[in-house]
Amino acid sequence: MPGNILSGTVMESTVTQFPRCWPTPSSLANPHAISEAVSLMTSAKRPLVVVGKGAAYARAEEEVRQLLEKTGLPFLPTPMGKGLVADDHPQCVAPARSRVLLEADVILLLGARLNWMLHFGRPPRFAPDTKFIQVDICAEEFDNSVRGSVSLLGDLKAVCGQLAEALPTNSCSKNSPWWNRIQEKIHSNMAVTKKMAEDTSEPLNYYAVFHHLQQLLPSDCIIVSEGANTMDIGRTILLNKLPRHRLDAGTFGTMGVGLGYAIAAALWVKDNAPGKRVVCVEGDSAFGFSGMELETIYRYNLPIIIIIVNNNGIYGGLSEELYKDIRDGMDTTLATPPTTLLPSAHYERMATIFNDSGHFCSSISHLQQVTSQALTDSSKPTLINVMINPMAQRKAQDFDWLTRSKL
Amino acid sequence: MPGNILSGTVMESTVTQFPRCWPTPSSLANPHAISEAVSLMTSAKRPLVVVGKGAAYARAEEEVRQLLEKTGLPFLPTPMGKGLVADDHPQCVAPARSRVLLEADVILLLGARLNWMLHFGRPPRFAPDTKFIQVDICAEEFDNSVRGSVSLLGDLKAVCGQLAEALPTNSCSKNSPWWNRIQEKIHSNMAVTKKMAEDTSEPLNYYAVFHHLQQLLPSDCIIVSEGANTMDIGRTILLNKLPRHRLDAGTFGTMGVGLGYAIAAALWVKDNAPGKRVVCVEGDSAFGFSGMELETIYRYNLPIIIIIVNNNGIYGGLSEELYKDIRDGMDTTLATPPTTLLPSAHYERMATIFNDSGHFCSSISHLQQVTSQALTDSSKPTLINVMINPMAQRKAQDFDWLTRSKL
Amino acid sequence: MPGNILSGTVMESTVTQFPRCWPTPSSLANPHAISEAVSLMTSAKRPLVVVGKGAAYARAEEEVRQLLEKTGLPFLPTPMGKGLVADDHPQCVAPARSRVLLEADVILLLGARLNWMLHFGRPPRFAPDTKFIQVDICAEEFDNSVRGSVSLLGDLKAVCGQLAEALPTNSCSKNSPWWNRIQEKIHSNMAVTKKMAEDTSEPLNYYAVFHHLQQLLPSDCIIVSEGANTMDIGRTILLNKLPRHRLDAGTFGTMGVGLGYAIAAALWVKDNAPGKRVVCVEGDSAFGFSGMELETIYRYNLPIIIIIVNNNGIYGGLSEELYKDIRDGMDTTLATPPTTLLPSAHYERMATIFNDSGHFCSSISHLQQVTSQALTDSSKPTLINVMINPMAQRKAQDFDWLTRSKL
Amino acid sequence: MPGNILSGTVMESTVTQFPRCWPTPSSLANPHAISEAVSLMTSAKRPLVVVGKGAAYARAEEEVRQLLEKTGLPFLPTPMGKGLVADDHPQCVAPARSRVLLEADVILLLGARLNWMLHFGRPPRFAPDTKFIQVDICAEEFDNSVRGSVSLLGDLKAVCGQLAEALPTNSCSKNSPWWNRIQEKIHSNMAVTKKMAEDTSEPLNYYAVFHHLQQLLPSDCIIVSEGANTMDIGRTILLNKLPRHRLDAGTFGTMGVGLGYAIAAALWVKDNAPGKRVVCVEGDSAFGFSGMELETIYRYNLPIIIIIVNNNGIYGGLSEELYKDIRDGMDTTLATPPTTLLPSAHYERMATIFNDSGHFCSSISHLQQVTSQALTDSSKPTLINVMINPMAQRKAQDFDWLTRSKL
Repeated sequence: MPGNILSGTVMESTVTQFPRCWPTPSSLANPHAISEAVSLMTSAKRPLVVVGKGAAYARAEEEVRQLLEKTGLPFLPTPMGKGLVADDHPQCVAPARSRVLLEADVILLLGARLNWMLHFGRPPRFAPDTKFIQVDICAEEFDNSVRGSVSLLGDLKAVCGQLAEALPTNSCSKNSPWWNRIQEKIHSNMAVTKKMAEDTSEPLNYYAVFHHLQQLLPSDCIIVSEGANTMDIGRTILLNKLPRHRLDAGTFGTMGVGLGYAIAAALWVKDNAPGKRVVCVEGDSAFGFSGMELETIYRYNLPIIIIIVNNNGIYGGLSEELYKDIRDGMDTTLATPPTTLLPSAHYERMATIFNDSGHFCSSISHLQQVTSQALTDSSKPTLINVMINPMAQRKAQDFDWLTRSKL
Repeated sequence: MPGNILSGTVMESTVTQFPRCWPTPSSLANPHAISEAVSLMTSAKRPLVVVGKGAAYARAEEEVRQLLEKTGLPFLPTPMGKGLVADDHPQCVAPARSRVLLEADVILLLGARLNWMLHFGRPPRFAPDTKFIQVDICAEEFDNSVRGSVSLLGDLKAVCGQLAEALPTNSCSKNSPWWNRIQEKIHSNMAVTKKMAEDTSEPLNYYAVFHHLQQLLPSDCIIVSEGANTMDIGRTILLNKLPRHRLDAGTFGTMGVGLGYAIAAALWVKDNAPGKRVVCVEGDSAFGFSGMELETIYRYNLPIIIIIVNNNGIYGGLSEELYKDIRDGMDTTLATPPTTLLPSAHYERMATIFNDSGHFCSSISHLQQVTSQALTDSSKPTLINVMINPMAQRKAQDFDWLTRSKL
Repeated sequence: MPGNILSGTVMESTVTQFPRCWPTPSSLANPHAISEAVSLMTSAKRPLVVVGKGAAYARAEEEVRQLLEKTGLPFLPTPMGKGLVADDHPQCVAPARSRVLLEADVILLLGARLNWMLHFGRPPRFAPDTKFIQVDICAEEFDNSVRGSVSLLGDLKAVCGQLAEALPTNSCSKNSPWWNRIQEKIHSNMAVTKKMAEDTSEPLNYYAVFHHLQQLLPSDCIIVSEGANTMDIGRTILLNKLPRHRLDAGTFGTMGVGLGYAIAAALWVKDNAPGKRVVCVEGDSAFGFSGMELETIYRYNLPIIIIIVNNNGIYGGLSEELYKDIRDGMDTTLATPPTTLLPSAHYERMATIFNDSGHFCSSISHLQQVTSQALTDSSKPTLINVMINPMAQRKAQDFDWLTRSKL
Repeated sequence: MPGNILSGTVMESTVTQFPRCWPTPSSLANPHAISEAVSLMTSAKRPLVVVGKGAAYARAEEEVRQLLEKTGLPFLPTPMGKGLVADDHPQCVAPARSRVLLEADVILLLGARLNWMLHFGRPPRFAPDTKFIQVDICAEEFDNSVRGSVSLLGDLKAVCGQLAEALPTNSCSKNSPWWNRIQEKIHSNMAVTKKMAEDTSEPLNYYAVFHHLQQLLPSDCIIVSEGANTMDIGRTILLNKLPRHRLDAGTFGTMGVGLGYAIAAALWVKDNAPGKRVVCVEGDSAFGFSGMELETIYRYNLPIIIIIVNNNGIYGGLSEELYKDIRDGMDTTLATPPTTLLPSAHYERMATIFNDSGHFCSSISHLQQVTSQALTDSSKPTLINVMINPMAQRKAQDFDWLTRSKL
């Protein structure tokens, strides 16, 4: 763009205003396919509903909730499908995610796709004979990775309405063996999580940090999150009650988007939902991609709460000995693996650039205090650096990250 | 591709067979939008239906016919929408095309798009306040060029079924002023055409050639066509009775496709509809793109009837004097404009390469004779070169080719 | 391009004329590198010069000839390097091509590159320890495929001048064992070729056709050629005496270029070298790509001589029995392999389209007669279809086509 | 890249090591063109040499210095050509840059191109009849924008050797009117600059900052720089004594490269020139692109000196009143234009993240003290934030930034 164009002026009256794209017309699924889907769902022994971000984009919250509550079906949200129906809804089976994916015999995908986020719908994460009913707005998305049993093409909101009407009431009773099995797994998983969450010894672990944050955050806040463990574990503990209130690295796992998303959300809140808070939960490595955006946040005085969950960027492979040296402040420059960040970086001090003070928390009580204070005071940004155990990990998982199919 | 791969061999048992893409699920239009469409159609004073090739691809012939016959609406096919409902159906208003496009107040587009083939739906070819109801399978195709009044997203076949059911019987009476006006225009246009068709003086004109061909061609034949005037005029006179029986230069006006399409059609016929004939009507310039494919046609002995309508490739701008020189066999090499082809090229003689004889026709009676003979004998290809008046033109048109919008 | 732009008019005075690109400045090779090259060439036991089309583009004919004649070095032209120095020059060793490439210990590449046309400079076509001295205008072309010993970057014409000056006189004596060995191989190869060339029994073989054409064609004619065997064998027998007088499928082996090249050459001849003839030697399959361009040739009455060397497009794999059926005019449609063309296509009859008669030759005497006549009469195009033995092949080769490196 | 590939292991012995690209052969300019260039240079009344980064890449420092010192020609370095010959060389006429470009009648371009950095070689920045002699390694770079008088294609180092040998001694006498005119302009420009440099009143101006830095920086240090005014003014005052010791935004003006370049330079210094210092001079806006790279700098403890010349990112258009509010610490959030950064950001405090303390300087004496200290202590990084007058500008220029040609 030549400089004289960039800095030129025109008469506003001469500017052609192009209209926005008109709203997309909605379409419905074929009634025969709806019947097939109903028949398959009602004959299922271990049915499951997966709620994807397609349902959120389609603003189908009312229809999906009706469908679930009428039928009693268990459901699992995808990361950005969280909140379409509240995460604490009694039919949400997120705490037993791996188990239900593996054992379900019929899965209804609502705006969710069988890409890597759903392990491509294949063994070992799914049973080889799992039947999929997929609802999607895009015909090309059907039968990818695995052949679906029923394909429902149409507007998610409209099709969920069709399904909600056609599915029989209470088709998946709370007393069924399937629900019993799920509940059992939820309880045992939550017991493990609860134990870790209650372990507030220092250095802190992820579960303790997220559990105590969750107790404080308003249920209507917008949560932005990116990182590896920070995003993955945080997703399981930080609950969403409302649709479209979670922004994260998305289908392609793009890092560096967090602060930009948070700024956009805060500007939207300012005009559309004053008082609603934006909380940005960042891994320290993720924060390193776009941390300089703090200048923008302070310049516009956006009351975003940024919480860096700081494991020193150490992503596996750290010896116990090296960890102790880091903890004890030894010079570990040469010993730290090249894929890690500088141990003990006090990112909260970036706030001092803008004549503010950030917060360094290494205990739960301190984290609780500064978070409460930040939530009370919506007049300015808050930067919190929570130092956790560099050795902290997820609870034991049934499957490795990126488990490969046998296919 | 390395040569050793191209000529290599493998055990057939080791070849992985990938399944074809599964059939696309069909979707329906939103019932509210259907109601709006019905309401708009029934309140129209001068309604029109345009049947596009999208309807042919969707195999919606039964539903479209029901819709039309129940309502009595006039319809217009697009080039490759021809035959979905028979061109000689009493409700087909193709002979009054320009008039109905210009005067219709509500137009229902069935798998037809407002691109250049429909003059972008704008003045001067359409009234500025024309209302469009569009049925399409692709959401991105709505509201292009002009804002539609109702957008019906879904499978053409399914949505036409919805419309056929919802539209009232006989909503467009044959006695209405609109139908009277159309009939009047049809009759006056056909009178002009008839006069030109009956003018069998030599050199021949386009209308005489196509009119007498039409009388001979079986109504179920597959017509392939490309060229400029040859394709445009031929389209109005050569009628299609069956869906998907016309192949031409398509949405992008691609030249050079004719013989390839004809070969594909003939191979399909061989296996699927023995006895059905393929007739390939080519302008001489169009034939020049891919005439060498004749070798393939003769090699596989495909009984295609190729008719070159030869105006010496002269596309406008020829003086009366030069025309006479051409007619009289003078050396016109230096005088012919660079955009024309060699006068009097005897393309029919290409058949002699393959030890066959082609046919050169300069009179209607000879054309009738060789065409009849070719239709009787399906044992081999036929090549007919019909020499017409290099000055031959379309009948007077209300609008220039590629008339530009005032927008 | 919108139609109104294409057919619009402007005042010529308002048209901005952009200058052509200015001539590229020439550069010289580093004198140290020249010394290294000279030292390597003079110490070689079996030196060879390869003259590529880069030398032709650089118009380096005078410098290359001086270099060769001063030193006595044997040389080999690449296909479009042919004629830079006359093919019948006593130092041209083209008839022993495979042998000299394989046995040379030092090869000087003048505007020739080690791509597939030179077998990538690797075994088994070259000795593994061959040393290459490369002269090229493009730095990125050095050390591709194999590491060169000396790289001379610069304008081919200028660098050949440097080399011609620096190389000692008669560095490669005609009495050397290397020259003796080459001469011996040339004689034995030419004896084989001569025998095939003299076998004028019918159906004809390639060698007989090209040999007798070569005797007739003027040494300054422009030869255009494409095809597989037709181009490969023709190249070895049809000699070029002048630089830039051969156009063929080029580095990428592109088929379909022949008639277009011939038209361009004929138009150039018309303005720049009246009387010079353009001879276009086509395989029948190659002719099939762009045979319709004959219309352009006749329209502008360009006196191109087109010779189709017609082996019925049969490219290997034909049984003796099937050959006989073809010869005897049996219906072989179903039996001919799908990669072959129609047996016995009389392409010469295409001339009849334009009220001319082509020539069908199945004997040498007839070929001689029609070729002589065509050369005498430069008032019009000539189309000659020479029917050869569908089983005709190259003489036995030491290496398969596209022999693969062991690397 | 699948995770199992990224984290997989292989036997080192099985890894194929590909060789680096071999060094490019050098080429020389055509001796005739050299003669033309010499003739043109010696007949020039107001000759000028422009030394570009192409000369630096070609490592031509010795040849260029000889050429200049033998002839007495005035020279001007381009930004990354600085230091090829020392900036304080008596023949360097950088302080009179605009004047010499405008008045020179013959300009010798050594690896410099007539792109936007040299105002495309056109009026109003150059006289319309300026003659250009261009030395370049790339033939496509000649005659762009304006037609050159002599084009010398070849290796810069080799061609400068040719020129140095061919040009007569003392061809441009120090007593010539041209040199007198240049000296006069240098003195008047330097007087203005000197006055601004000596104005150490607070808030500081650019010239004072750079002048006093220049007095302290070791002459062999590597200077990395990016920004708008910071880079442009800094370039005129921070001198380079050695070739390839300046890295900046380059031909495409890419921002965000500074810290990455500094890290690379520091790692190179570590292994190749221990003790040499890397100084990174950043505008505050430029620092905002990649400031988070400070983590890498501290992690590897690279003794880079980062100096942020902080005008609050205000790039023109600030009212006197607003400036006073900023200075007085008023809340100016809403008033600052959207293209500016937050006033008074204390970027030096980023050092506290890493348990270091940065330096905030608003006076020359303080800047001198912390710079001296940083230069003494090479054991760690140093971060200095120099607050200057947000209204500070370049000295009055004869031409606007991005002056447009009349062409």
